[in-house]
Amino acid sequence: MGKIIVEVTVVPLGTESPSLSRYVAEIEKTLREFNLKTKLTPMSTIIEGEWDEVFSAIKAMHNTPFSHGALRVSTSITVDERRDRKLKMEEKIKAVEEKL
Amino acid sequence: MGKIIVEVTVVPLGTESPSLSRYVAEIEKTLREFNLKTKLTPMSTIIEGEWDEVFSAIKAMHNTPFSHGALRVSTSITVDERRDRKLKMEEKIKAVEEKL
Amino acid sequence: MGKIIVEVTVVPLGTESPSLSRYVAEIEKTLREFNLKTKLTPMSTIIEGEWDEVFSAIKAMHNTPFSHGALRVSTSITVDERRDRKLKMEEKIKAVEEKL
Amino acid sequence: MGKIIVEVTVVPLGTESPSLSRYVAEIEKTLREFNLKTKLTPMSTIIEGEWDEVFSAIKAMHNTPFSHGALRVSTSITVDERRDRKLKMEEKIKAVEEKL
Repeated sequence: MGKIIVEVTVVPLGTESPSLSRYVAEIEKTLREFNLKTKLTPMSTIIEGEWDEVFSAIKAMHNTPFSHGALRVSTSITVDERRDRKLKMEEKIKAVEEKL
Repeated sequence: MGKIIVEVTVVPLGTESPSLSRYVAEIEKTLREFNLKTKLTPMSTIIEGEWDEVFSAIKAMHNTPFSHGALRVSTSITVDERRDRKLKMEEKIKAVEEKL
Repeated sequence: MGKIIVEVTVVPLGTESPSLSRYVAEIEKTLREFNLKTKLTPMSTIIEGEWDEVFSAIKAMHNTPFSHGALRVSTSITVDERRDRKLKMEEKIKAVEEKL
Repeated sequence: MGKIIVEVTVVPLGTESPSLSRYVAEIEKTLREFNLKTKLTPMSTIIEGEWDEVFSAIKAMHNTPFSHGALRVSTSITVDERRDRKLKMEEKIKAVEEKL
């Protein structure tokens, strides 16, 4: 098994305010304790790494809002894995941009 | 940590044929080796269980198309977890239907 | 363009209570005003129909929690469309079950 | 109704090769014909705009792989909308980064 690229969004539900950036910042801090390549976008966080280390990070991210008072959390994950050749986040973008 | 309810869709990419039911059946067989409550829908599989056992099953499901010749796999996962009370798949449906 | 099968989840954010079934029931009522084949699962609603009518229903579903006091709504949609042959929800399930 | 921020991924299924960048580039070209704010990430495209114009663009994006030979397309969409104040993609990122 090689590297996977994963898109993750962790959303606390039933918080008092519709502003969630306070939670998202705590989730990002949790992620940064892991030694993984990551990229924050306006809708999610993209992570590159081996399956087990990526999913350890995701479990910790999912637990973070509960540590800050949330009672319910919805976490969405999309995994992309190729085994014919290595997949890297910057190369996925480059492969598209070369063809534009 | 209690039980989580998870919706999973595992899709092999670059498979030549647009018919994927052969792969989906193998993925379901893999899942059934785990001792988890599951439900197949027309768009995904829903699983109920503890985080670690559910994600062991998902890792095995994600690996299944590679064992059957796929070179790339996209896996989408949505986790729903409540910690104020137990969440069960049939009760989520019942709570909605009572209000209709 | 033929029929599409769509999986939709509409989630109000910042609602104070983590119980969302009251909102989900209102969203289902909105959907039932449209003449579409639908199926409620523990994690989402599956809809079968033509693109334009399905997305009219989804827009109305997305607007429903705002009419009931929500200030923020997150809606997740997955569309599956085949053009080599007709795709129907019960046949997708049957094609998998025959191979189990 | 104000602006929504949407994350979209359009994936052709049953293509001969697991490399999809050729399709993704065509989908991006289609999107650029619309007058919308967009951002390409390694896993999806983020779009900001009014509901109707965003979903006209998504319908055209979803149709693009069919015009280039695909027989099946899977399109994933996540909509984020706030009505208590305007939501802009760069401000969502800024609100998180200020708290890190």
